[in-house]
Amino acid sequence: MGKRIVIALGGNALGKNLPEQMIAVRETAKAIVDLIEEGHEVVIAHGNGPQVGMINVAMTTLSREDSTHPMAPMSVCTAMSQGYIGYDLQNSLREELLNRGIHKSVATILTQVEVDPKDPAFEHPSKPIGTFMTEAEAEEMRRRGNAVMEDAGRGWRRCVASPKPKAIVEIDTVKALLDAGQVAVACGGGGIPVYRTEGNHLKGAGAVIDKDFASELLAEELDADALIILTAVEKVAINFGKPDQTWLSDLTPEAAKRYEAEGQFAPGSMLPKVQAAVKFAESKPGRTALITLLEKAKDGIAGKTGTAIHQ
Amino acid sequence: MGKRIVIALGGNALGKNLPEQMIAVRETAKAIVDLIEEGHEVVIAHGNGPQVGMINVAMTTLSREDSTHPMAPMSVCTAMSQGYIGYDLQNSLREELLNRGIHKSVATILTQVEVDPKDPAFEHPSKPIGTFMTEAEAEEMRRRGNAVMEDAGRGWRRCVASPKPKAIVEIDTVKALLDAGQVAVACGGGGIPVYRTEGNHLKGAGAVIDKDFASELLAEELDADALIILTAVEKVAINFGKPDQTWLSDLTPEAAKRYEAEGQFAPGSMLPKVQAAVKFAESKPGRTALITLLEKAKDGIAGKTGTAIHQ
Repeated sequence: MGKRIVIALGGNALGKNLPEQMIAVRETAKAIVDLIEEGHEVVIAHGNGPQVGMINVAMTTLSREDSTHPMAPMSVCTAMSQGYIGYDLQNSLREELLNRGIHKSVATILTQVEVDPKDPAFEHPSKPIGTFMTEAEAEEMRRRGNAVMEDAGRGWRRCVASPKPKAIVEIDTVKALLDAGQVAVACGGGGIPVYRTEGNHLKGAGAVIDKDFASELLAEELDADALIILTAVEKVAINFGKPDQTWLSDLTPEAAKRYEAEGQFAPGSMLPKVQAAVKFAESKPGRTALITLLEKAKDGIAGKTGTAIHQ
Repeated sequence: MGKRIVIALGGNALGKNLPEQMIAVRETAKAIVDLIEEGHEVVIAHGNGPQVGMINVAMTTLSREDSTHPMAPMSVCTAMSQGYIGYDLQNSLREELLNRGIHKSVATILTQVEVDPKDPAFEHPSKPIGTFMTEAEAEEMRRRGNAVMEDAGRGWRRCVASPKPKAIVEIDTVKALLDAGQVAVACGGGGIPVYRTEGNHLKGAGAVIDKDFASELLAEELDADALIILTAVEKVAINFGKPDQTWLSDLTPEAAKRYEAEGQFAPGSMLPKVQAAVKFAESKPGRTALITLLEKAKDGIAGKTGTAIHQ
């Protein structure tokens, strides 16, 4: 019996620009179709760091040159990035499925994800996006009402808040596609960030939602059996890069939280992945979160590699 | 018993920039939800002329300033425009439905539409997109491999081919959402234009598909009862703007084609709408195409106004 699996694709699965993306998604499609071929139901979520940064720069440049176009909010840039990435991704998946004789529809659902406007993340924009700027350019950006930060000695960048996802607005659409035996791409870039105002209105938020947390919520709301968070290493390590570095194969949420408390996982890198994995594993007995490489996803689901976190 | 209706939204329903779009989609949502409230199944398609032009200019400007980003093909710009427009559209529809106590999911499906690479339209790029240029800028654009045209004495513009749609790649996804009682936005901007190459590969085409023809194909493939093509007039006229101008209420495909042969309908304006309407009306007895104003859609479906074309 196949499992219901949510796959969270990271930057390596997509590349940093259009030519890279067209090549990267082909390999990504192979690894995903390996799972579909084994009978698993698959929903794909993905990040959008470089892509939403690029779109934001393009739209900002346009607004400088043509005053009829105001700056596009981050929510709109994320919506555009879902189109930009989803198109290549659904196309590659369709082709790989047909190449293996599997007739399954694949589609990208434009997905909004609700956040809490009182999320403390809005007080501390922390997620750098887009290209590097000089200090003078950063100052100009700040005067236009944007948060900026100095990024690890490499220059200044615009930064936005990264609030936690609370609900997936289009979840029933993703469920309907799963029920119809189709493959869905959803919550691209962590989803278009929105929050409730008066009545039934949803307003775009100046934020980018972490794709690992959005994927975790998607997996919970779909009652998935497994959440696969793909990254650049085959397994999670403790004492990473030190003489006593140890790869982890199987751990409980409690063990993972103990390592987290020791500061074993790098913020902005492995930490959110482990936190999202722990949240999914804790949400219900029988649920497994797996952190591994794209090309090891199939072996990981078979229990052969990767770091599995479950109760 | 409700009808299955495909609605083709034109430029007036969406506005020309982001602030205009946010206002326009609210009125658009009201007119569409009027139909849903009466028990009709609705699928929404839309144009993207100004939006894809704007995105194309933004991405071209980015590629000039940052050589790591090559120019985005029209297919990618259309994919982005589906995100840009679909986000506001699905959000407004969701809000209007909830305001009326109707609990129905709404989602945008990123849609690819197949064209024939041998379509003669590729030999004669005819659809102007984006902003006006000087002759020197147009010459530079031409040297970069793009077609350009002088647009009605107003300046030079980039132009692209407008081939006929042959098949909707994600049609089964739209059907699955209809089966689940949901509202779908599909074929945005006429769909992302693609064509088959070797094997199962779909390649993006340097084109923009006319949204009226894409909507017509969508209506045929969904076996819809009605296709509503929204425009800036309540009815189609013959002898338009002349002393003997006559509004048309009800006509057969044959009558419409006779008027077309007389040159009654303006190319690039009413002509493609009438042609798409005739094609739908001819495709099967019982199918009705309606051309009218957005705010008259409900009355039009009730047979009270608009120009209806049917066998």
